[in-house]
Amino acid sequence: MRSPATNAELALLLEVAGTPKPGNVDRHREYPDLRFEHFLAGAVGAGEGFRAAAEGTPLGEAFERAIAGMSEQRGGNTQFGAVLLLVPLVRAAAEDDLSPAGARAVVRGTTVEDAVDFYRAFEYVDVTVGDRPDGIEAPDVRRGGDAAPTLEERGLTLADVMDRSASVDGVAREWTSGFPRTFGAAEWLLEGDDTDPVPDRAAEAFLRLLADRPDTFVATQHDEATAREVTERARAARKGDGGETPDALAEEFVRRGINPGTTADITAGGLFVALERGLDV
Amino acid sequence: MRSPATNAELALLLEVAGTPKPGNVDRHREYPDLRFEHFLAGAVGAGEGFRAAAEGTPLGEAFERAIAGMSEQRGGNTQFGAVLLLVPLVRAAAEDDLSPAGARAVVRGTTVEDAVDFYRAFEYVDVTVGDRPDGIEAPDVRRGGDAAPTLEERGLTLADVMDRSASVDGVAREWTSGFPRTFGAAEWLLEGDDTDPVPDRAAEAFLRLLADRPDTFVATQHDEATAREVTERARAARKGDGGETPDALAEEFVRRGINPGTTADITAGGLFVALERGLDV
Repeated sequence: MRSPATNAELALLLEVAGTPKPGNVDRHREYPDLRFEHFLAGAVGAGEGFRAAAEGTPLGEAFERAIAGMSEQRGGNTQFGAVLLLVPLVRAAAEDDLSPAGARAVVRGTTVEDAVDFYRAFEYVDVTVGDRPDGIEAPDVRRGGDAAPTLEERGLTLADVMDRSASVDGVAREWTSGFPRTFGAAEWLLEGDDTDPVPDRAAEAFLRLLADRPDTFVATQHDEATAREVTERARAARKGDGGETPDALAEEFVRRGINPGTTADITAGGLFVALERGLDV
Repeated sequence: MRSPATNAELALLLEVAGTPKPGNVDRHREYPDLRFEHFLAGAVGAGEGFRAAAEGTPLGEAFERAIAGMSEQRGGNTQFGAVLLLVPLVRAAAEDDLSPAGARAVVRGTTVEDAVDFYRAFEYVDVTVGDRPDGIEAPDVRRGGDAAPTLEERGLTLADVMDRSASVDGVAREWTSGFPRTFGAAEWLLEGDDTDPVPDRAAEAFLRLLADRPDTFVATQHDEATAREVTERARAARKGDGGETPDALAEEFVRRGINPGTTADITAGGLFVALERGLDV
């Protein structure tokens, strides 16, 4: 049986192999500077951090290690959000409680030290971060390790930090709410036709997630209106009435530089949960 | 820096991502029962065995573990030969001597116990094995673990077993001769244009290896004449004079079920050596 850490690597690989995933790098579409191979290297590079998470290394440290490994390729930020989603799930799986409650317990158990290491991870790659709305009281992640004194002074745990971003970041929202969309996507993946290739099922789950709720990364990278448009277009493409197709959307979104990255992150999380629950590859 | 074990996983992934690789599964071509996703799962599944090889676990045991992990997917034998090629190279790299001499030393150091574990690995997957020519004195690999008493009685080490198959198997030939084609392919990969995607360079190295010498897996699976034809066609496709193209060959070979697997194995080995020597992804 594959270990949780190996399944986490595999989830990242199956996510990027799924096609078409409108706007994102996949097996058939890439950007000149962000290519399929960068995601392959990112996935295996994150492995050591996943193994650390499974073995009980503090979550923030395991995450930082995963990001250090992920970033050893020339594409830059390939899977930062997906790794952030996966690390607590790997820990929960290793503790034999991969459930919303188990994942919540892992999140609740995070410390100020985990928050410090989380901030340090931002030093390895450029992560697209939007202007923070008023009322967010955690330090700007772009401060990296320099945020440590502020985090310590205010006693902010990693769970607290996620809580502060949940309104603007879909991955943080999963962290603070028992990973509902992640576990939901896993259900869809497990319900699918067992003989369909898994990457095809992943692409379908991606489109379904995208049609369900605006992607926060698109909102940050572009604006709220674009994020809403993307969701409406995905909804139309899912109808399959010929007016809009996933392939045409994929071409257009790549051309316009629209990357629904948060939706891809949640797809990877869903693949991980599904693999742990018996999804056959 | 990526560890040798992580580079071995990545080499398997970059190999299968390269396209077109006439006759083999790649990012754009698959068989109904042997798909891209099976190679992804095979690559990460082999990881634990690679890590064992790097940490000094006896070579046969590390290989058996890698094959056990690789085979946890529904495609069957995805990367048996490539893993067999990689395990001694991972060990040599972990010992800081990834060179023909270093690899030879690893091979020379194998024991009868390694041979027994190598035979056991055949119990995990169906490996295509041809009728053995007269004069091969090692037990039939299809006997799996049952071959142990014979191996022990005759005192055959894993190096001896490879030596017996070198005339009919291209991977065994690499084992017994300091991995010349593997190191040669690494040179080609490192010489290429640094800005070309690595999977493209891998596909080119594959075609060059195929044009260079008949694939022993094709000879086993079909016959010597087919293997010679494949090499001649690959040579013509490399000329690029329009008469034959790699893409057309890929379509035809997949249709005819011609899989130059040994050439893919050596390509994966070459990718590993190139990654260890600084090939940037």
